[in-house]
Amino acid sequence: MPGYENVISNCGIARGFRPSAQYASCMTSAPTSPLTDPWPKSPVLQAAYRSRAAAADLAPLPRAVKDDALLAMADALEVRTKEIVEANAADEERAREAGTSDAIVDRLTLTPERVRAIASDVRDVIALPDPVGEVVRGSTLPNGIDLRQVRVPLGVVGIIYEARPNVTVDAAALCLKSGNAVLLRGSSSASHSNAALVKVLRDAVGGAGLPADAVQLVPGESRESVRELMRARGLVDVLIPRGGASLIRTVVEESTVPVIETGTGNCHVYVDADADLDMAVEILVNSKAQRPSVCNAAETLLVHQDIAPRFLPRALEALAEAGVTVHADERVMALAEGSKATVVPAVIEDWETEYLSYDIAAGVVDSLEAAVSHIRLWSSGHTEAIVTSSQQAARRFTQLVDSTTVAVNASTRFTDGGQFGFGAEIGISTQKLHARGPMALPELTSTKYIVTGDGHTR
Amino acid sequence: MPGYENVISNCGIARGFRPSAQYASCMTSAPTSPLTDPWPKSPVLQAAYRSRAAAADLAPLPRAVKDDALLAMADALEVRTKEIVEANAADEERAREAGTSDAIVDRLTLTPERVRAIASDVRDVIALPDPVGEVVRGSTLPNGIDLRQVRVPLGVVGIIYEARPNVTVDAAALCLKSGNAVLLRGSSSASHSNAALVKVLRDAVGGAGLPADAVQLVPGESRESVRELMRARGLVDVLIPRGGASLIRTVVEESTVPVIETGTGNCHVYVDADADLDMAVEILVNSKAQRPSVCNAAETLLVHQDIAPRFLPRALEALAEAGVTVHADERVMALAEGSKATVVPAVIEDWETEYLSYDIAAGVVDSLEAAVSHIRLWSSGHTEAIVTSSQQAARRFTQLVDSTTVAVNASTRFTDGGQFGFGAEIGISTQKLHARGPMALPELTSTKYIVTGDGHTR
Repeated sequence: MPGYENVISNCGIARGFRPSAQYASCMTSAPTSPLTDPWPKSPVLQAAYRSRAAAADLAPLPRAVKDDALLAMADALEVRTKEIVEANAADEERAREAGTSDAIVDRLTLTPERVRAIASDVRDVIALPDPVGEVVRGSTLPNGIDLRQVRVPLGVVGIIYEARPNVTVDAAALCLKSGNAVLLRGSSSASHSNAALVKVLRDAVGGAGLPADAVQLVPGESRESVRELMRARGLVDVLIPRGGASLIRTVVEESTVPVIETGTGNCHVYVDADADLDMAVEILVNSKAQRPSVCNAAETLLVHQDIAPRFLPRALEALAEAGVTVHADERVMALAEGSKATVVPAVIEDWETEYLSYDIAAGVVDSLEAAVSHIRLWSSGHTEAIVTSSQQAARRFTQLVDSTTVAVNASTRFTDGGQFGFGAEIGISTQKLHARGPMALPELTSTKYIVTGDGHTR
Repeated sequence: MPGYENVISNCGIARGFRPSAQYASCMTSAPTSPLTDPWPKSPVLQAAYRSRAAAADLAPLPRAVKDDALLAMADALEVRTKEIVEANAADEERAREAGTSDAIVDRLTLTPERVRAIASDVRDVIALPDPVGEVVRGSTLPNGIDLRQVRVPLGVVGIIYEARPNVTVDAAALCLKSGNAVLLRGSSSASHSNAALVKVLRDAVGGAGLPADAVQLVPGESRESVRELMRARGLVDVLIPRGGASLIRTVVEESTVPVIETGTGNCHVYVDADADLDMAVEILVNSKAQRPSVCNAAETLLVHQDIAPRFLPRALEALAEAGVTVHADERVMALAEGSKATVVPAVIEDWETEYLSYDIAAGVVDSLEAAVSHIRLWSSGHTEAIVTSSQQAARRFTQLVDSTTVAVNASTRFTDGGQFGFGAEIGISTQKLHARGPMALPELTSTKYIVTGDGHTR
């Protein structure tokens, strides 16, 4: 059993402190605890250890250094567009051969214009303030100690995501800006694109003098490699799944690493007895049909019984014009008779379905409280909107509804980091712990307390 | 398959909205989703559903209503001290019969004075501000929408804890103040005490007009009942284990409910080359010996090689006077020769041991950076102190050490909700997500966004 001297000499401490080299050499023999953690054989865990070392280097960096690296990333994406688009073409061809739908192939495809747009998004991140170092609270305690709570990076952020290759760059840029190392696990359908993008990003980060391991792909494409990532508690500080409901459920259930649940949106629009009819129709159609494939699109319409006879005929017509099929309860069905609407009878599953398509469930409720109960029962807790001219109703609805976002006389589509003015978004958390709603740079940080005294004891 | 009308009539909505009754009746047939959640047979899950219903009632309550219930709780504890002390006597007797150590029996014991002190702690919670409703950020967006992020309760908080019955009341009071329902799982050694305390608290809460289910014990004493609690994702919003390292590890590893890891403290005192010797000795002895059984007590001393020959002889003598055994590396051992210190050779396990006793590991390091590397390798990330007269060293140490709290020229013992001026503490989080360091009322909340427009659409 080696003693203390061996440990520190293994850590390269005698050679002076260069964070990256020192920590990396330390890890070769003793990753975090020589007692419990021999250098792992698994490539996934090796990558995670390299991420931890990179994270230790990134944490104390000032904004200017990180912004320089982000600028290098943006420039490199533009200069090396050709190799990115070529790699993407291989993914696209494979997808077409596999009979993938045009919509999905389109999401996967990178053109020179799209690469330029991605680079431009990185430049936007440069312009955002650095959350690290922000003093969240501070005071002088009665005994004279100065207490400060300051933002620090989370450390290693794992992102598990589906087809869109732009997420690769977005996530890397936001994590680097907030001082975190990122471990990226994209879908195999985008593997060539992701490999090319990460190569470009790593070269840029390394060229700017920061550890290239700040940005890594999780090695391997097997399910087992994802499972290892999900079990790397202590190495990976948080996992953020971005994608469909089944991906998110798997990560939430199987991970021992803390997870931030994102994105499932069974959003409701409730039209109150006192709603302005024009406004209600506009908000409904916008919430449902402006972009039906996203998580903040509305999936259920609830209408107060007192306004239903006046509102529903107009609403159903407007929805029909927007190409929306209405899954209607009996009372909506009755009011739809003779209208031009496309209406089918609702079954119970409709109340919990996130269609992500030109479909909406619709029901009539007896009261605002009935709407709230319905939402409590069925909502995924993402975004619910009320349209009302009653101050009391607006106040009651916002108090009683327990979702990330409650909108009063506004479309559900505003729940978005960009719309909220956060300048960026790494996902929309639908859980209550750590972050709730659109997550931007501050949500990629933790805090630490700094206690400063003059020899204070208890 | 029932349609929408059946669901809302099952929910008692037609009978008007009375939060508790309505939600409870709703749950009888359809707890959160009739598709997936029949009313469970398990008493643990039934209790969790009742907690959810209570949480829905508590969430919108204003401070005055919650404070009245807290006052009723404090009064009831004092009025009914006799039945609490009698129930506690049964636990105490059982513990003595089982040969439990005097120290543990003492922690378990409730005297009339201790019950009064517990009631007094509840009164202190009344005086604290209500975190719920606090506007965390707010702005008017460029399109004129008003955006506010407000604090809301987490919902249902599960606490799994060991022998001390005062935690039962502390946790209930802090959860009620922050609008959360609490599900308490104490140790079986305190079962009579906890049952009596919870009965008193529930009577008081119910008497004040709030749902008694705001405070519940997890039914059953089996391991299986804990496991059910840990798997009640979607019903329980967060689990906070309070107790020894093995309890915390079990909860962290087996829970699918989000967990806040608390309390393991392998804290370090680093004495820098430029330290004031008197101050260093005082901080060291206070950090180690003022109360060795708690998580913010120091467990390892690291000394810069330049100051070691002057500092260690005095430090070792002071530690010996305080009754502390030093587990010393070779360089400390050499400097201890001829001193009155109680010194034994350190083995590698000493660097990661949380002694919680009159023991400390001690080593000499070549530099501040070597101390940081040692801490990165071995610390549990709770609290690390540096004693130094160098501004540069203080700054570098606080930047590089990644723990919940970094103390400069102050004892590690200050990491505490009471000491930090938070007025309360539900635990000390050693994780990075959601809360880090001492957790008080704001850490028992989440947030929601309220978006207010005039018919805004995208």
